[in-house]
Amino acid sequence: MEIKIVKDILDANERMAQRNRKLFDGNNLFAVDLMSSPGAGKTSLILQTLKNLEGKIKMGVIEGDVSSSLDAEAIGKEGIPVVQINTGGGCHLDANMLSTALDSVPLGELQLLFIENVGNLICPAEFSLGEHRRVLISSIPEGDDKPFKYPLMFNTVDAVLINKIDLLPYLKFDIDAFSRTVKGMNQKVEIFPISCTTGEGIEQWVSWLLSQMKRPV
Amino acid sequence: MEIKIVKDILDANERMAQRNRKLFDGNNLFAVDLMSSPGAGKTSLILQTLKNLEGKIKMGVIEGDVSSSLDAEAIGKEGIPVVQINTGGGCHLDANMLSTALDSVPLGELQLLFIENVGNLICPAEFSLGEHRRVLISSIPEGDDKPFKYPLMFNTVDAVLINKIDLLPYLKFDIDAFSRTVKGMNQKVEIFPISCTTGEGIEQWVSWLLSQMKRPV
Repeated sequence: MEIKIVKDILDANERMAQRNRKLFDGNNLFAVDLMSSPGAGKTSLILQTLKNLEGKIKMGVIEGDVSSSLDAEAIGKEGIPVVQINTGGGCHLDANMLSTALDSVPLGELQLLFIENVGNLICPAEFSLGEHRRVLISSIPEGDDKPFKYPLMFNTVDAVLINKIDLLPYLKFDIDAFSRTVKGMNQKVEIFPISCTTGEGIEQWVSWLLSQMKRPV
Repeated sequence: MEIKIVKDILDANERMAQRNRKLFDGNNLFAVDLMSSPGAGKTSLILQTLKNLEGKIKMGVIEGDVSSSLDAEAIGKEGIPVVQINTGGGCHLDANMLSTALDSVPLGELQLLFIENVGNLICPAEFSLGEHRRVLISSIPEGDDKPFKYPLMFNTVDAVLINKIDLLPYLKFDIDAFSRTVKGMNQKVEIFPISCTTGEGIEQWVSWLLSQMKRPV
């Protein structure tokens, strides 16, 4: 009985995700679901990417948080369309929340939409939003053992950004071992070491992102 | 109908949490629910606390992870009782999982039990396990805005440990502002800046922990 209920919820989410996807495709809008632990650098990455693509790509952002609108305010200062979703306790975004937020986004004017998910390595991995690519930020201070502990997340993303590499002199993190582990779990994944503080690696990430926008399917 | 189901689940958890609590009290065992984001330093804190209390307090550990037994292995090397719970996708421990794990713990031989929850700032806050104290680790690299984003967690803990203060020279984090925010949300909370790398602040934390063990209720 319980399993039946869960299945229905997931199916309903999948149907809504497909509706969101059609909406994106109808507007030639490329959507990225950005996920990470709390404080790994999702908002910083969006700001760095925005800086790099300024004048080239029209970008919008949907911010997902349990509470507060701090991230939306930070993004809003850059003068681009941003909508905040507060889940009010929910540990992930779902396709229905996203659908509601999309009503407030000028989809036809944009080419790229970042959806910043709730800071959590578990539940966001289970829910499709209709996005074209799923991107995970894993940061140096979190340690290099996270793929073993949160396998579904690492298994289901298209790219992993290893953020805060400017802290490598002060922390133990074996980038080679981490990358081998992630590639062993998910052969198609792309891995980019970056620092949103120094800007290192951002060009490679943006270049990959642009290449994906050319072949969204 | 949906709300009814959720309420029943929470009630069932509360009943089981009370059973766990009775089991702890019957064995004069003090139980701590240790929560944080992924990689904030839960296992490191347990190892540091163990080192500090060696020969004084008999300690056991229950490790909660979605997947893997890496943390239990790290703790097990220290020669103390440890049990790993793998939630298999679940984003938090619950009182029933803990109850099952307690069958494998020599409760009568121990004075202190650390329950390392799944790395997540959202769902673990909602589920009582029967613990005497709830402790949160918030780490410098996560940033000082986390109380605004995860209010239930910060509202419902007895102590907040600000870990990785050895990284303060390299990162923006206003400990005073953070502490004021947390105290504004939760007046009874104790706050301890610590570093599990250098050992700074561990004595103050352990001293508080021992004082709590003397008056568990």
